Amino acid sequence: MKVNYPIPMANNKNTKVKKTLSHGIDFENALNLSNEYYRNKNIALIYKKPTPIQVVRVDYPKRSMARIVEAYYKTPSTTDYNGVYRGKYIDYEAKETHNVSFYFKHIFEHQVKHLTIVDNMGGIGFVIINYKKVNRTFIIDIKEFNKLYLTKDQKDCLKSISVDKAEEIGYEVSQGYNPPLDYLKAVDKCYFSDK
Amino acid sequence: MKVNYPIPMANNKNTKVKKTLSHGIDFENALNLSNEYYRNKNIALIYKKPTPIQVVRVDYPKRSMARIVEAYYKTPSTTDYNGVYRGKYIDYEAKETHNVSFYFKHIFEHQVKHLTIVDNMGGIGFVIINYKKVNRTFIIDIKEFNKLYLTKDQKDCLKSISVDKAEEIGYEVSQGYNPPLDYLKAVDKCYFSDK
Repeated sequence: MKVNYPIPMANNKNTKVKKTLSHGIDFENALNLSNEYYRNKNIALIYKKPTPIQVVRVDYPKRSMARIVEAYYKTPSTTDYNGVYRGKYIDYEAKETHNVSFYFKHIFEHQVKHLTIVDNMGGIGFVIINYKKVNRTFIIDIKEFNKLYLTKDQKDCLKSISVDKAEEIGYEVSQGYNPPLDYLKAVDKCYFSDK
Repeated sequence: MKVNYPIPMANNKNTKVKKTLSHGIDFENALNLSNEYYRNKNIALIYKKPTPIQVVRVDYPKRSMARIVEAYYKTPSTTDYNGVYRGKYIDYEAKETHNVSFYFKHIFEHQVKHLTIVDNMGGIGFVIINYKKVNRTFIIDIKEFNKLYLTKDQKDCLKSISVDKAEEIGYEVSQGYNPPLDYLKAVDKCYFSDK
């Protein structure tokens, strides 16, 4: 299926760098560098999945050298990141907003469902939201997320998650030099502490 | 990094269909259909990762419609498949051989390392090998795989895993109509039975 949406963050690398976080790197890079740090320290094995691309036509300018000459971005069937941490399966979708509230229309319903199934199957599933305007990042467990998401179409129910709400239902991620976003500390608090 | 290897299985879809398994579908399709079956039955959530592609040039023939006009296949940094099963992280590399023995040179060293780390972190990591000639499929736990793999460069040590060896150190996967490859039954025997 070809899609016409805005091109995912991952493909904007050649355009301007979004200077969001304290250290002048964008959100996706911050997550990737943090995951690299976690891998190097044997803390967790978490990777960003490649952006799915529908290849239509391939040329072979040289023997055994394939050049793709027509292809289209596809809708990801799952989420951005997954891997293993403390023996458990971990899976999350990363979202950034320029607003002070994250609107539910900016996440695919099938991604929310995917994270819900992850949770049902005993894995760790959450959404990590970066509020660019205030330079704060939160993880929100999919169960908490769903409490708001599933009622979003009802009258008088929230259509978005504000920073204040994220603070109430989520766990803030601390920023640093390395890792730039130490989100596994928030994961520890959310999933591994005796609440 | 651009690479010049043989194009991965995933990209051969438009060429001839390899009729390997009893039901006339190729190995990768059989795995994908099996994973779809497992997802639909809420047994496991396992996906094939998209083939990583390095996008070099994108055209915009229409507003908000991106057409990739130059791109190259990249070496996958990890393995083919991962997900969650029985609460655990599961990760594997799928390999097919036309031979009666699977040669170690056909798997990337970094993929073997990746699976080894998965195992060290408490996840399930294995290689699933389809021996096309004899139409038999085995899963081999990464620890067993490593016992042979790590000595492969020594004199008088095995350079490949024959069907007989796979039978000795692995678990055979039964073929059927749906799922075409019920490999999670082999996973149950290998990882969840009281041996």
